Amino acid sequence: MDLEQSPFQLMDEDQLSLQLIDAQYNLKNTQGRKNAKSVLILVNGIELAGKGEAVKQLREWVDPRYLGVKADRPLMLHNKQPFWQPYVRFIPAEGQLMVMFGTWYSDLISTAMQPTQPISEAKFDAYIDEMRAFEQDLKNNHVDVVKIWIDLSWQVLQARLDQIEPSELRWHKLHGLDWRNKKQYDTVQELRQRFSDDWLIIDGTDEKQRDQQFAQAILNALKNCPAHPKRALGRWQQAKIPERLKSPEQRLAEAEDYKPELKKLTSRVASALRDDPRNVLILFEGMDAAGKGGAIKRIVKKLDPREYEIYTIAAPEKYELSRPYLWRFWTKLQTDDDICILDRSWYGRVLVERVEGLASALEWQRAYGEINRFEQSLVEHQTVIIKIWLAISKEEQAARFKAREETPHKRFKITEEDWRNREQWENYLKAAADMFERTSTELAPWHIIATDDKNTARIEVLKAILKQLQAESSA
Amino acid sequence: MDLEQSPFQLMDEDQLSLQLIDAQYNLKNTQGRKNAKSVLILVNGIELAGKGEAVKQLREWVDPRYLGVKADRPLMLHNKQPFWQPYVRFIPAEGQLMVMFGTWYSDLISTAMQPTQPISEAKFDAYIDEMRAFEQDLKNNHVDVVKIWIDLSWQVLQARLDQIEPSELRWHKLHGLDWRNKKQYDTVQELRQRFSDDWLIIDGTDEKQRDQQFAQAILNALKNCPAHPKRALGRWQQAKIPERLKSPEQRLAEAEDYKPELKKLTSRVASALRDDPRNVLILFEGMDAAGKGGAIKRIVKKLDPREYEIYTIAAPEKYELSRPYLWRFWTKLQTDDDICILDRSWYGRVLVERVEGLASALEWQRAYGEINRFEQSLVEHQTVIIKIWLAISKEEQAARFKAREETPHKRFKITEEDWRNREQWENYLKAAADMFERTSTELAPWHIIATDDKNTARIEVLKAILKQLQAESSA
Repeated sequence: MDLEQSPFQLMDEDQLSLQLIDAQYNLKNTQGRKNAKSVLILVNGIELAGKGEAVKQLREWVDPRYLGVKADRPLMLHNKQPFWQPYVRFIPAEGQLMVMFGTWYSDLISTAMQPTQPISEAKFDAYIDEMRAFEQDLKNNHVDVVKIWIDLSWQVLQARLDQIEPSELRWHKLHGLDWRNKKQYDTVQELRQRFSDDWLIIDGTDEKQRDQQFAQAILNALKNCPAHPKRALGRWQQAKIPERLKSPEQRLAEAEDYKPELKKLTSRVASALRDDPRNVLILFEGMDAAGKGGAIKRIVKKLDPREYEIYTIAAPEKYELSRPYLWRFWTKLQTDDDICILDRSWYGRVLVERVEGLASALEWQRAYGEINRFEQSLVEHQTVIIKIWLAISKEEQAARFKAREETPHKRFKITEEDWRNREQWENYLKAAADMFERTSTELAPWHIIATDDKNTARIEVLKAILKQLQAESSA
Repeated sequence: MDLEQSPFQLMDEDQLSLQLIDAQYNLKNTQGRKNAKSVLILVNGIELAGKGEAVKQLREWVDPRYLGVKADRPLMLHNKQPFWQPYVRFIPAEGQLMVMFGTWYSDLISTAMQPTQPISEAKFDAYIDEMRAFEQDLKNNHVDVVKIWIDLSWQVLQARLDQIEPSELRWHKLHGLDWRNKKQYDTVQELRQRFSDDWLIIDGTDEKQRDQQFAQAILNALKNCPAHPKRALGRWQQAKIPERLKSPEQRLAEAEDYKPELKKLTSRVASALRDDPRNVLILFEGMDAAGKGGAIKRIVKKLDPREYEIYTIAAPEKYELSRPYLWRFWTKLQTDDDICILDRSWYGRVLVERVEGLASALEWQRAYGEINRFEQSLVEHQTVIIKIWLAISKEEQAARFKAREETPHKRFKITEEDWRNREQWENYLKAAADMFERTSTELAPWHIIATDDKNTARIEVLKAILKQLQAESSA
C-alpha cells in the first residue's frame, strides 16, 4: 500500500524558495541545542524519472551552502560489508540537511537484479527489515529519515529514452539496468513495492509538478521533524549483579607453569587470529586498573602491527557528539581491519555514560537494542566479536591505584577522578549486570574474567579468545 | 650518506618512560596554542628487523591513549592516485603523535620491485623528490616528520627467518618480498640508499638497543620539534593588477543567439566531461555575486548528479584548522570523483585569508608553492584542473547586491559583511593579481572571465572548459 498522498498544490516558486531557506536556517540553528536534529532524504526511483533534475531544482531554491548532496552509482551488497557502511560518513550532523541518492535501497535492487547471483525473496525481505531498523535507530538519534521514490510509467520512460542524447544514453546504459526491457522494469516495480509503504511516491511525468512535490516534501521534512521522545518508557528491570562480579574468585596459576603456558597460548592465539578468514574484533571493558592494557599486550605479542589495529576509546569529540551515538564506531571500523582490538568500546553508553548521567535514561536504555543490532550486523558480515569484561575486586583496585601512584612513570594512569569513580562502584556493577543480561547474545557473548591475579587473568583471556574462535569456526 | 648517528646510550627504562610521557603531555598541551605542532614518525626497514617490536615496546613506555599507530601493508603506486592520498587522513592533528608504517616509501620500494612493471631509476628519484617536497610542506605546516629505518644484515635476517614460527613465516611470505633471495635483499638496500640520507638508521640486531634507540629518537622528536619559522622572508613583489580585472570589458552577446548557443554548449560540455577518461576538477573564484552559482548550474545542466560532486567551500571547521591548510582538500577530493566542481577552493588562502589577515604573511606567501605542488600532483595523476576567475566590476556588484536585497528569497545571499568587503576591493584585486602571476601554470592555467553581462559570461565559461579539455586531450 502506498502512502496516502497528501493533497498537493503548486506553490508560488519564490514563496517556496523563501520558506525552504527559512526552514534550512531554523534547522541549522538547532545545532548544539536540546532540540537539535538533522534531516536525511533518501531518493530512489525509475531511471530518467528526474531524480537528478529534482535535486538540481532544489539546489536553486535553497541556500546551497546548507544542502549536502551525495549521489553515487549502486554498489553490490556483499558478505563482508554491512549495507550501511559505505554511507555512514555522509550521515548528516546536527543542523544539516543531506540528500542521498543512490542509497542502500538502490544497492539492494541492483543486487537483487544481478543476472548471475540474484538473491532470494526471503533474503530481500530480511535486508528490508534490517534497513528499517537502522533507519529507526537514526531517527531515535535525531536524524529524521524521509524516503522519496520518483516514479515513471513504462510508456513515459520509453518516450524519454527515445529523446535523450547519445552520450547521456551511453551513460545510463553503462551504469543502470536495461530500461528498454519491460520485464526488468516490471521486476523493479515489484521489488519496490516490497518496501515502499513508508515512502512518498512522486510521479515524474510532469516535470514542474515533480520538482515542486519533491521540494515541498523536503520543506515538510524540515518543518515537521518529529519531536524527540523525551522520557524513558516504564520501569527499569535491574538485573541481579552476578556474584563473580562482586568478588571475582580465581584459582591461582601455578607460578612455574605460568611462563611456558603463556608462551604457548600467545603463539596459538596469534596463529588462530592470523589464520581466521573472518575479521576478528576483540573488545575490553572493566573497571580501571583491571588490566586491559596488559591483556592486549599479550594478544598482539606474536603479531605484526600491520596485522591489527588497536583503538583506545576516549570521550567523543565535539563533531562526533553531533551525530548518532554509534556513528564514531560505524565510521572507525573498516572492513579491511582483519584484527581489531578495542580498549573500551560502544559499551561506554551503558556503563560510564549511564552511571555518570552523560546519557539520559531514554538514551542508555535504548542503546542495548542499538548495540545488539550493530553487533549482529557485523557478525552477519564475517566478523567475530569477542567481548571481555575484566572483573577486579574493589580492594585489588585500590592496591593497584596505590602502586601506580608510587611509580613515577605510571602515575599518569591515575587521577583524582579514578578515586572518585570508586564511590560509584556499586552503580558500575549494576550497569555491568544489565549489560551482560541484555547484550550477551549467542552471536556475541560476554566473557567475564577475574583479574585479581594478573597471571591467571592473562591466561584466561587468551583461552577465551581461542575458545570462541574455535567454537565458531567449527560451528 | 647516512645521517651521522648521535652517540647513543641506554637509558634507565623507567626514566625513559617517564620522559616520553612528559614529552607526550607537553606536545598535547600545545593544542590550540601558537606553538602547536604534531609529530609524524615514518618507520620502514628490513623485514624482521623489529619495526613492529619497537613500536610495541614504545606502546609500553608511553601513554597509549596519545600514541597513534597506523600500520599497513604496502600499496602499489599507480597513475590515478598521488602517493599521499591513502595516508592523508592519518596525518596527526595538533598535539598528536602518530607512528606510521608502512609509508609512501614502502609503497615506492614495493612498486619499484614489482617483477612485471618495475619503474625506472629516474622515475624512482622523481618520486623521492615529490615525497620530500610533500614532507617539507608538512613541516612548514607544523607537522614534524621524522624518518626511521630499522636495518638488518643479510646474515642476521637469514638467521631470524630460520627461527620464526610457521604461521608467522606464511604471513611474511604472503605480504612481503622474498627475503630468502639475496639479490632482492641487495636491491632493497640499494633503493633505500637513494633516499635515506635524511633518515635515522637503527641496527635491529640487538633488540634492547633497537627498542631504546627507536624510543629515544621519538623522545628527541617530541622534545626538539623545530621552532616554527616566524616571519615572511624579504620584501613582497606585488604583481601588477591586470586591466581586465579592474574594468572587465565584455562584448555583449546577441540576445537572439544566446539561447541556442547556450543550449548547444551545455550539451557539448556535458559530453566532453562525461567522455573524458581523466578526472576533471573545475574550480571557481571571484568576488561575491560574480555568478559562480549560475555558472555551475549551466555546467551540470545536462549531467546526472551521480556523475559529479559540487563542493561549496566555507570557512574551515575547528578540526580542520588543527591540520595543515590543504588537509581538508587532500581528504575531500576522492580519486573516484570523475567530475568535481568547487565553488571557492584552496585559493581562499591567498585571497580572503590574506586580505582579512586570517593567514600570516609567511603562510599565504608560502601557499603559492604548496598549491602549485598540490595541483601538479593531481594533474600528474590523471586530473584536469580548470580554474576560472569570474571578474565583475565594482558598480555591477553593487547593482546585484541591491537586487538581491530587494528579492525576499535571495536576501540570504547578502549580508552586512558583503558590503563591508567592498572596502577591501583594491586589496582583493591585488591578491588576485598575485595569484594569477604565481599559480597560472602550464599544467593548470587560470581563465579570467568578465561577468558584467551574465549571458556572455555563461557562454564564455562553457567555452573555456571545452577549450581546455580539448587542448589537453589533443596534446
